Amino acid sequence: MNTTVSTPLILICNDDGYQAGGIKALTAIAREMGRVVVAAPQLPQSGMSSAITVGSPLRAHQVQAGKGLEVYAVSGTPADCAKLAFNELLGGRRPHLLVSGINHGYNAGNSAIYSGTMGAVFEGLFHDVPSIGFSFDDYTPEADFGSCLPWVRQVMRQVLECGLPHGVCLNVNIPRCSGGPKGLKVTTAAAGRWVSEYERRTDPYGQPYYWMTGTFERNDPQDDSSDLYWLDRGWVSVTPCRADQTCREALQATASLLEQR
Amino acid sequence: MNTTVSTPLILICNDDGYQAGGIKALTAIAREMGRVVVAAPQLPQSGMSSAITVGSPLRAHQVQAGKGLEVYAVSGTPADCAKLAFNELLGGRRPHLLVSGINHGYNAGNSAIYSGTMGAVFEGLFHDVPSIGFSFDDYTPEADFGSCLPWVRQVMRQVLECGLPHGVCLNVNIPRCSGGPKGLKVTTAAAGRWVSEYERRTDPYGQPYYWMTGTFERNDPQDDSSDLYWLDRGWVSVTPCRADQTCREALQATASLLEQR
Repeated sequence: MNTTVSTPLILICNDDGYQAGGIKALTAIAREMGRVVVAAPQLPQSGMSSAITVGSPLRAHQVQAGKGLEVYAVSGTPADCAKLAFNELLGGRRPHLLVSGINHGYNAGNSAIYSGTMGAVFEGLFHDVPSIGFSFDDYTPEADFGSCLPWVRQVMRQVLECGLPHGVCLNVNIPRCSGGPKGLKVTTAAAGRWVSEYERRTDPYGQPYYWMTGTFERNDPQDDSSDLYWLDRGWVSVTPCRADQTCREALQATASLLEQR
Repeated sequence: MNTTVSTPLILICNDDGYQAGGIKALTAIAREMGRVVVAAPQLPQSGMSSAITVGSPLRAHQVQAGKGLEVYAVSGTPADCAKLAFNELLGGRRPHLLVSGINHGYNAGNSAIYSGTMGAVFEGLFHDVPSIGFSFDDYTPEADFGSCLPWVRQVMRQVLECGLPHGVCLNVNIPRCSGGPKGLKVTTAAAGRWVSEYERRTDPYGQPYYWMTGTFERNDPQDDSSDLYWLDRGWVSVTPCRADQTCREALQATASLLEQR
């Protein structure tokens, strides 16, 4: 695919909503490189994974219109935003790149399965558009994305120029450290699981309710191929991802277990 | 892991809600095999993928209590249901098996990324419990699951007895055909994408809104390793799945593209 074009069209999504600081930082970088269409949730949609809206219709409000920048606020999930952009909002234009984020908080380890930021990225992958999710180690609404910008710019420029391997999108996480990240490593998603995931409380009427909380425990904190290993040490992690959930290594064992019985 | 136990404990989740016909059929089969705890959404949660509820608390109402069967209706997503069961509702008991479904409608091809049924299954995988999602080719609320039952029973019994390969859960789809399925095949998720995903309408005030619709187009309809190929021909498909989204085959190419520049 020829991705070297004079004026690229860049589609931007996120999960924190169109008014978040992270998407504004990402939009500013994208505008250095080309025309920009933002399609982002009207309201924050963290933890929405690849959820889609079925059973009720979507709305999209154009909140900004200009020569190089259009912004749409969509009444759905991050995946809805990307889908609606590809099908309707882009009006037949094909983007050269989809970027999602910059997320307020990491989407690292196999916890990335919950990421709405990546939910939008997978839609770009389905549409054969080079697609990248960016996440930064600061959950706060007032996060300062200054130290991210050179890394986001570098990855976007490189992917715009060279494309990505077929069937692959990128999950980029950026650490927060004094002096900025030390470098960039291509990584795997750290294997682990959440523990102590809820805090139980009792309401004024004596009934229980549960707040999500917990900590992510890695199976092997010393796995030096993993994203969290390098993030801990101040490096940007880039994990190549695929949408196919099939575990091909297990096809034979599963067939032995279940076929022809 | 020794999964041969005298009285197995089986955790059941779904995405169609605790009152759906599919979960009632699955519960009936599970009760033949052991004690059952159902933790399912209070309201239908189709298309919720691995979405989790953040920013608002969850509630769980016990709607049935008995010696061999407890049923909880949870105010969240399918993944929330499984998480809350593991952390709170099971009260420290460890299930021998998690089953999710039987979903009203297929979760096949790489569209399974949107499946709430599988969202619950991946939580079982994170907790190292053998976990299986079941889906049936009938979207209607009044679907008749009779022809599914022998196949669901066979797969559950086999997995209860022998466990599953480490890091793997199963996505089982069951076709609707006269005389019942012809047999069972271990498959991959068919690669493809949705096209024409929205129907645009205009409200009485002249404003547009969008209904999700569309069709799933396979990249290669003749791929005889894929779930949809065998489902079309009247076979039950079983796809082994993993939660790790990393595309290990692309690590080298991604490193060549992005590292040390």
